Amino acid sequence: MPAPDLENGPTSALDPAIAARLRRDSGGLVAAIVQEYGTGDVLMMAWMDDEALHRTLSTGRATYWSRSRREYWVKGATSGHHQYVRSVALDCDGDALLVTVEQVGAACHTGTHTCFSEDLPVHQEERP
Amino acid sequence: MPAPDLENGPTSALDPAIAARLRRDSGGLVAAIVQEYGTGDVLMMAWMDDEALHRTLSTGRATYWSRSRREYWVKGATSGHHQYVRSVALDCDGDALLVTVEQVGAACHTGTHTCFSEDLPVHQEERP
Repeated sequence: MPAPDLENGPTSALDPAIAARLRRDSGGLVAAIVQEYGTGDVLMMAWMDDEALHRTLSTGRATYWSRSRREYWVKGATSGHHQYVRSVALDCDGDALLVTVEQVGAACHTGTHTCFSEDLPVHQEERP
Repeated sequence: MPAPDLENGPTSALDPAIAARLRRDSGGLVAAIVQEYGTGDVLMMAWMDDEALHRTLSTGRATYWSRSRREYWVKGATSGHHQYVRSVALDCDGDALLVTVEQVGAACHTGTHTCFSEDLPVHQEERP
């Protein structure tokens, strides 16, 4: 299994034209923001290396790189909470992907709909 | 100006209870996903250290850490494309924030509504 430890990206079947536009962190990863198709809810953020992105694009199933386990994971493979990918967009500076999915069940491993369930207190400034 | 180069976080006035829940990268940063209030559009992703988060929460104006310029930037300070913060949520593992904003003008420095304007080709698998 390739280790995503090069800023130039690991060996992968990812389209070289796409690979050339990624701006990876020191671990070879870009952020993947996951948004629910239909509702627009932001569900979670995970990480992809070139190969995870290639697998996501070519299979239509969201596939990430686990930094803690150091392995690829297909979302839902163990939980049944599958993500069917509807679109993937790269941002202007190449360090983030927006992945739109049909989510089966809870997106968060804690069992909640989204991983962003903890609100922080914020001062509200009125828009002029 | 404090450099966000410690995984324990730079000196900041951020509430220690919040700071304790952040899981920062090697640069002392967490990802900030910016979503438009009302439309649900995901506009951009930027980075925050403890002080940027403190300023965002305490002023209600989205404030980021620029990795390239190595300085804080208040979104809209030069462009006029202000972001009035409506909510901030931390994710379950503490490495990402979801910032909901009222966006004035274009969120992207390229002049587009969002930074995620470049769709990648994806195989569509039908949900069973």
